[in-house]
Amino acid sequence: MEQKNRLDVAPGTVRPGGRTAKVRAAVLAATGEALVGEGFHGLNMDRVAAAAGVGKTTVYRRWSTTAGLVADLLRDMAEQSVPASDTGSLAGDLRANALLVLKTLTDPRMGPVFRSVISAAACSDECAQALGGFYATRIAAWTPVVERGVERGEAPADTDAAEVVRAVSAPLYYRFAVSHEPLAEADAHRAADVVLAALAAGAFGARAPEPGVNAAPTGTD
Amino acid sequence: MEQKNRLDVAPGTVRPGGRTAKVRAAVLAATGEALVGEGFHGLNMDRVAAAAGVGKTTVYRRWSTTAGLVADLLRDMAEQSVPASDTGSLAGDLRANALLVLKTLTDPRMGPVFRSVISAAACSDECAQALGGFYATRIAAWTPVVERGVERGEAPADTDAAEVVRAVSAPLYYRFAVSHEPLAEADAHRAADVVLAALAAGAFGARAPEPGVNAAPTGTD
Repeated sequence: MEQKNRLDVAPGTVRPGGRTAKVRAAVLAATGEALVGEGFHGLNMDRVAAAAGVGKTTVYRRWSTTAGLVADLLRDMAEQSVPASDTGSLAGDLRANALLVLKTLTDPRMGPVFRSVISAAACSDECAQALGGFYATRIAAWTPVVERGVERGEAPADTDAAEVVRAVSAPLYYRFAVSHEPLAEADAHRAADVVLAALAAGAFGARAPEPGVNAAPTGTD
Repeated sequence: MEQKNRLDVAPGTVRPGGRTAKVRAAVLAATGEALVGEGFHGLNMDRVAAAAGVGKTTVYRRWSTTAGLVADLLRDMAEQSVPASDTGSLAGDLRANALLVLKTLTDPRMGPVFRSVISAAACSDECAQALGGFYATRIAAWTPVVERGVERGEAPADTDAAEVVRAVSAPLYYRFAVSHEPLAEADAHRAADVVLAALAAGAFGARAPEPGVNAAPTGTD
């Protein structure tokens, strides 16, 4: 899995690109390893520099803070994210997407990385922006899948493609990061089934004016 | 809003219950205030004790760690969570649920509290368990809404009620905690619309054996 291999890059491993690219690769690999091991709040610039075999001054000058390291790791993950699937059917592609999200969140290395960056984003605006950027990139990569489905007549013409992509991921991330419930393959299939059924019913179409909802509820749970 | 008032409780305010309950109320109120102001990693036992007007030794003895404070705040929030709505229709109740989640996550005080506890849960097993417990309580409080809908013939008999409740919240939490995208009332209505459409199509029913999915996708985004 690309990003897993990405994290497997040993400090100093030669990757395409010049010295700058190699330094970035080693530092981001060490950052990923540290996130897996200690989480965002255990992240330490000096230890990352040492693990990467890169001078501290280089790391401080180029990334400034641990939030800067996480933000750049997220940019790198976005750059490296695999292309969206093209199975020939919207159902097949959305199911593949759900299984890909499941595989990532349950991966022994990527799971902890995502847990850490989601936590980092809750306490650092820089990380929040970078995480938002990661998902914006991912959503943009998968919207053509929905658009092809619309062209094939598998979804209504006014379907909000980005909303469809978000909706496939949302229930899996909810269990992973919010309710902390187990994630199984059945959850990925359910996520795809629910979205496909809602799509067929036009629930992802441009929204009509809100139905009058009797008195907004009070309370905050 | 109950939990908002809950956080508004000034240190030392008299609440029902004896001294122990008053101490807990003051300490949890101070914990909530601190989470709003500084987040989980800014949480400090001594400052919480001072803000609550409670002796440090009491706070350390009773809550041990900042994770212990957050875990107890979550238990308190679960105990205080408002009853599920009963508008008379499943559509009305699920829409009310979506609007309630939206209202909570966009509340200027509860929003930061939830952001902080989600972050805390990513780095503390104790907080993760407490957060899981909070959502288990919330899901249990709302499943009867779905069961009443089933009894009224508004959803198939084999509907997985807990999955329906999770599915209403998931897209809102996804924007809030994962993709860091804006949350608007339209998102709550969409969440309800999607779930209602999928329900009608039986997508929340007991799952049939998995459709053979051509080779699980590789890659990890």
